[in-house]
Amino acid sequence: MGTAMEKQALTLVKVGGAVVEDPASLASLLSGFAALPGLKVLVHGGGRAATRVSEALGIESKMVNGRRVTDEKTLEVVTMVYGGLVNKRIVASLQALCVNALGLTGADLGYMLSDKRPVGEVDYGFVGDIVSVDAGALSRLLEAGTVPVIAPITHDGAGQLLNTNADAMASAVAAALSKYYAVSLKLCFEKPGVLADPADDGSVIPVLAAADIPALTASGTLSGGMLPKVEGALKALEQGVGEVVITSYNALAGGTRVCL
Amino acid sequence: MGTAMEKQALTLVKVGGAVVEDPASLASLLSGFAALPGLKVLVHGGGRAATRVSEALGIESKMVNGRRVTDEKTLEVVTMVYGGLVNKRIVASLQALCVNALGLTGADLGYMLSDKRPVGEVDYGFVGDIVSVDAGALSRLLEAGTVPVIAPITHDGAGQLLNTNADAMASAVAAALSKYYAVSLKLCFEKPGVLADPADDGSVIPVLAAADIPALTASGTLSGGMLPKVEGALKALEQGVGEVVITSYNALAGGTRVCL
Repeated sequence: MGTAMEKQALTLVKVGGAVVEDPASLASLLSGFAALPGLKVLVHGGGRAATRVSEALGIESKMVNGRRVTDEKTLEVVTMVYGGLVNKRIVASLQALCVNALGLTGADLGYMLSDKRPVGEVDYGFVGDIVSVDAGALSRLLEAGTVPVIAPITHDGAGQLLNTNADAMASAVAAALSKYYAVSLKLCFEKPGVLADPADDGSVIPVLAAADIPALTASGTLSGGMLPKVEGALKALEQGVGEVVITSYNALAGGTRVCL
Repeated sequence: MGTAMEKQALTLVKVGGAVVEDPASLASLLSGFAALPGLKVLVHGGGRAATRVSEALGIESKMVNGRRVTDEKTLEVVTMVYGGLVNKRIVASLQALCVNALGLTGADLGYMLSDKRPVGEVDYGFVGDIVSVDAGALSRLLEAGTVPVIAPITHDGAGQLLNTNADAMASAVAAALSKYYAVSLKLCFEKPGVLADPADDGSVIPVLAAADIPALTASGTLSGGMLPKVEGALKALEQGVGEVVITSYNALAGGTRVCL
């Protein structure tokens, strides 16, 4: 059924801090990522490493409503840890797997702009809310055979770096690239997908339709950290992303497909 | 005298840790760099910031013959500080000056390979000696209007990051790019050039010929940190770099031109 107008496939893998933090899990994820055919992008978090470095530097990690407050010192730490240590380790590992990885923050090539979050009830400090993604800049890299490896740091275009949520970056990049490509967004974590029974890794729900979500939330099947994942998945689909799958870092081909 | 075969001009600016460390000096350098016409590349050091972070983390900075010994913990720190903090701050600042900066370690795009330095009388640890530069990869970025901002970290191609001397990286990149471009290498530091009288900033030697260097060394005019700079300049010229200038971070148009 392919036509000349059909978009090329692109896989965008988002992997969170817990997987990135564990060398064996990270190696497994990167090995699976390297084996993916076609165009691809990796977006990584790195939360716990930043907390550890902050502690070692005597900087208090302040959390409000589960979110890190980013003062100037904390911004230095996340820029070092996410943009430097975590990102460059992943890039070097992928290069060793013959993937032509290029590490990027949103400031590099200026491809992602954010606004510093306005001070409301809480002052989150140097946290960025995404304003725009230059999909053309990313597309030119992809067409040149480059594999972007994206760290969760952006900038405001006026020289200020900003700490930015990795899930939000992954969704924004997936949505922007959907203009050019048929994007499959894979949200990878420690579990094999959305589980009907949280205690049974064999109980993966293969397809999760938006219409089923209220009942699954009411019954407690969807709870905790899964709720923002599912909400993010629905938002990405609404913004034109072709497919969203919630899956394990070591089973990129499996998982739960989320549908509108 | 221009012909169709004449190479396009490219300016490669190397700036050391002392300038990078001081916000006012860095702003001055970046403003001058942004104003440079044509193709350009920035290579930065960042030594003192790494020492400060190491100290804060309780990691001892071991120096042998003026060179940092890079154990595993120190490699983490330099990857964070050079590849993350210093590099991304410069990239965000240049983007605010409308320069399409892209931060790179040697691992990104795999464009610079090093070998871990063999253990001789001294074990320098995770220090890289440059083996090759993929000038084609850098050239493709330049032709796309990108301005590479290079941090002094490389990799061995097998997943290992390596701490690498920024001057050596600048010379190697300048030499490799000379295949495609007429490269002017500007080695920027705190003084306006090579001084006939170290106490007089007005005594810049405008042209320093290789033949004059032994006498100037014997008389003490060339001494200390200037000697490796001049040696590096001569080596770059021998490797085909068109022009090497030793100058101040805030006077990219002035300085001492070194000639064979």
